[in-house]
Amino acid sequence: MKVYMDYNATTPVDPRVAERAIPYLKKDSFGNPSSFHTYGQEARAAVTAAREEVARTLNAPAHSVLFTSGGSEGDNHAIKGVFFARREKGNHIITTQVEHPAVLGTCEWLEKVEGARVTYLPVDRQGHLDPQQVAGAITDKTTLVTVMMANNETGVIFPIKEIAAVCRAKGVICHTDAVQAMGKLPLDVEALGVDLLSIAGHKMYAPKGVGALYFRPGTPLNNLLHGGHQEGGLRAGTENIVGIIAMGEACRIIREDLEQDRQRLTALRDRLENGILSGIPHTFVNGDRENRVCNTSNITFEFIEGEALLLALDMAGVALSSGSACASGSEEPSHVLQAMGLKPEQARASLRFSIGRFTNAEEVDYVLEKLPAIVTRLRALSPIAPH
Amino acid sequence: MKVYMDYNATTPVDPRVAERAIPYLKKDSFGNPSSFHTYGQEARAAVTAAREEVARTLNAPAHSVLFTSGGSEGDNHAIKGVFFARREKGNHIITTQVEHPAVLGTCEWLEKVEGARVTYLPVDRQGHLDPQQVAGAITDKTTLVTVMMANNETGVIFPIKEIAAVCRAKGVICHTDAVQAMGKLPLDVEALGVDLLSIAGHKMYAPKGVGALYFRPGTPLNNLLHGGHQEGGLRAGTENIVGIIAMGEACRIIREDLEQDRQRLTALRDRLENGILSGIPHTFVNGDRENRVCNTSNITFEFIEGEALLLALDMAGVALSSGSACASGSEEPSHVLQAMGLKPEQARASLRFSIGRFTNAEEVDYVLEKLPAIVTRLRALSPIAPH
Repeated sequence: MKVYMDYNATTPVDPRVAERAIPYLKKDSFGNPSSFHTYGQEARAAVTAAREEVARTLNAPAHSVLFTSGGSEGDNHAIKGVFFARREKGNHIITTQVEHPAVLGTCEWLEKVEGARVTYLPVDRQGHLDPQQVAGAITDKTTLVTVMMANNETGVIFPIKEIAAVCRAKGVICHTDAVQAMGKLPLDVEALGVDLLSIAGHKMYAPKGVGALYFRPGTPLNNLLHGGHQEGGLRAGTENIVGIIAMGEACRIIREDLEQDRQRLTALRDRLENGILSGIPHTFVNGDRENRVCNTSNITFEFIEGEALLLALDMAGVALSSGSACASGSEEPSHVLQAMGLKPEQARASLRFSIGRFTNAEEVDYVLEKLPAIVTRLRALSPIAPH
Repeated sequence: MKVYMDYNATTPVDPRVAERAIPYLKKDSFGNPSSFHTYGQEARAAVTAAREEVARTLNAPAHSVLFTSGGSEGDNHAIKGVFFARREKGNHIITTQVEHPAVLGTCEWLEKVEGARVTYLPVDRQGHLDPQQVAGAITDKTTLVTVMMANNETGVIFPIKEIAAVCRAKGVICHTDAVQAMGKLPLDVEALGVDLLSIAGHKMYAPKGVGALYFRPGTPLNNLLHGGHQEGGLRAGTENIVGIIAMGEACRIIREDLEQDRQRLTALRDRLENGILSGIPHTFVNGDRENRVCNTSNITFEFIEGEALLLALDMAGVALSSGSACASGSEEPSHVLQAMGLKPEQARASLRFSIGRFTNAEEVDYVLEKLPAIVTRLRALSPIAPH
């Protein structure tokens, strides 16, 4: 049996999405949306329809959605775009210690190369951030607050609505990386009150290499990609038609399926999590179990090397990960779990289970069947485990 | 009959390319190349194979090719990447007046926001740039020269090898936008001697939304997209697998088909061009007819509004354009043709015919059959045409 429980790293493409997108990989549907002629105008109409689907799903006007090459580009665009556009006002950015590498890496580059000052707010043991921490960190030089909507490693949901209200009251732009929230929570940019919100296709059953950035009309924002007039002049580069069509369909499906997906995934995730906690000693969940997206469970298996557990699970046909795929290759244990107060060896002993639209109960039960023996075997080899 | 002669705006996806790429839009091939498990490693292997195809086609080592979201990203990355990495050395960039908007727009942003100084070199009536102009413009503050390999509007080929030699002798980084050269000329980064070279999938029979940037190992280059460690740490963001697989196959095909494509396209283009010049009075070709890529013909039809001619041709089933799709939406006549000395009304009376792999003689003859009557009719309506 093969079981994929790494949906937070990437999702399969939904067959309904693929069906809509594949014709645009064929020889006869290929116009450049910027071209004047019929081929071009057909492509433009398809992009427009997809943009309307994305905008409708976010409760945004269509002209406030621009397509990107993915979540990382959206985060880079939002953060650098505001930084450069408001540099005369100030150079201070506020974020958290548990953001995705695309946010942290962008902030670090701005610190190093552009003289930005960045405040990295801590979170508590449950992974929570108090909006008052944001309020307290804002200075007259603050131009941007960027806080994720849901954490990629723990699933913990941040109080973005309250943070956006704090920002608005102080005239600060508010961006949220909603890559891990899209398709797992209803996202309404009006209700949230954010100015910028980034999403990624490949976390929502569309392909890799496409994403979208919502920007509230009027938000000061420099381009990240300069050149042609595409995307209302905000993002140069010929549009990724296949990806954009796919994003539109993926958003339509989210509007249709979100509620039933959430209920089903919450039940499956809880079954998995409770089965692990009750069946395997010395395990605990990281992050607030109530205030979490429906599909994610981050569990520490004390006295184990997470990499060894991942390898053993992979050999048993179960694919998951220890944290962000974007941070893999790094020797460091999870910065998220360490920011939440875990010791490095606990962070290293933690796995992220992330299920999704194609996960079923049989797969959950397979993992619950295989996992205890694997953990027991690995602990038997551990010099630090209690025997 | 429908005739597409706007290959410089975008190409259809080659069916061989589509066949290779489509499986990666399906539900079962979807891993994240950064993931540790089997799904991820399968995706990583596919990306590696595609990278080797691209590198081999450019005669580059595989680790010197990074995948981008397209030509505009590659140009932005190369120019900003060198500018920021070498800012302590200087702030001077040299380019030409006839570059693609992605190059010009990036330079203009650096001038406005980052205090760059940019020299925009002129070209002559034939569209030529003398490498000595580059040599003469280099100062001790110059960090980057960026000159296109072939012009997108006229097809004129630039002396990049000689320009790169000038740069190397003076310790200046040399980038070339080779988007319009790829698949039309053999490109060998060693023979050329460039440090950076950008290409775009959708000008070479792969889909829109993917491209590649060659960088000579050791070239000082900041990231454009910060975050994850993808692409050797040089470009954050989960890889566009479908696009990357397509790029690999498109490059393999170029190695196989380039010589026969060039011969066939040169003959077809010349037949089209000579037919127009001999059949329609008051027409002339823009750009050096000898030193040009095989598929492009830029022709001025004096005393005509190009937009009207395009519309009439579109109604007759013939799709082409007046210049860069990326500059469309602008009311300005072509900056390329004006830099070559055409008057604005001549620039506005010019069309770009660009043919490609799926163009056949029947299509060329159809255009030669339809065009004279359309031109005659439009000129009859023109108050300035000689009657």
